[in-house]
Amino acid sequence: MTPQPTPRTPGQRKRDTLHRLEHDVDAWVATAGAGGEPYMVPLSFLWDGATLLFGTASASPTARNLLANGRARVAVGLVRDVVLIEGSVRGTPADEIPAEVGDAFARKTGFDPREESAPYHYFRCAPDRLQAWRESNELAGRVLIRDGAWTVD
Amino acid sequence: MTPQPTPRTPGQRKRDTLHRLEHDVDAWVATAGAGGEPYMVPLSFLWDGATLLFGTASASPTARNLLANGRARVAVGLVRDVVLIEGSVRGTPADEIPAEVGDAFARKTGFDPREESAPYHYFRCAPDRLQAWRESNELAGRVLIRDGAWTVD
Repeated sequence: MTPQPTPRTPGQRKRDTLHRLEHDVDAWVATAGAGGEPYMVPLSFLWDGATLLFGTASASPTARNLLANGRARVAVGLVRDVVLIEGSVRGTPADEIPAEVGDAFARKTGFDPREESAPYHYFRCAPDRLQAWRESNELAGRVLIRDGAWTVD
Repeated sequence: MTPQPTPRTPGQRKRDTLHRLEHDVDAWVATAGAGGEPYMVPLSFLWDGATLLFGTASASPTARNLLANGRARVAVGLVRDVVLIEGSVRGTPADEIPAEVGDAFARKTGFDPREESAPYHYFRCAPDRLQAWRESNELAGRVLIRDGAWTVD
């Protein structure tokens, strides 16, 4: 792990946040269907000083979800180098994970859920579908995993 | 808009994706509650060649959602400079947006939903809560908007 920079002051954080809201182009927008299906896509946005404005096809899952329940969770701060995965997930209590798997997780991430005092779970997400793209000229051909299998050798 | 680089070949895309899955530390993980509430957090992960492994507190919304329905949507490719927003969203059909707002959106994003042949909506997301942080040493003090109001002057 590289040393962390000094935490910013609250004012600097707000300035940086506003800079990002004013100058970033894309945000991650997560929504949910009535059946509890999560959805998330990067969408361009416009910040007007108080709200974010998005535009998306009315027939898209994001639009359908938002029109039905009006709830979103939005993350700003991405690079134009997207890897987006839809997966099936299974959970395992932290104390039931094989030791070598827990060790490998801790080595890579610098974080060991087994050492937390609160109960933790591991979740293993198997990609059913994986898309990767950088700019809009890469939208064609972005599906690299379909039905759990790589489409590219 | 800066010129886009040449699209990568499928093989290069797969190599880049695997590089990211193997070397990136964090992913965006979107889940949904039974009531259709979206949830999304950045979580560290470990890629084992076929699946992503996450660890999170069993009492967290992500864990509760995943234990209940086993569905996630995951995005890899972020910078350690997070602005995360929970918001209330209202939709407007693209042809009902005020012209100056649609124009400002198109100027900033390079994308004009009003010119699409399919129906589009704009969605305006008002932040109820906004968190901003870079590293874990900034988790304290990360709430910059609470109940729709900035906590920082």
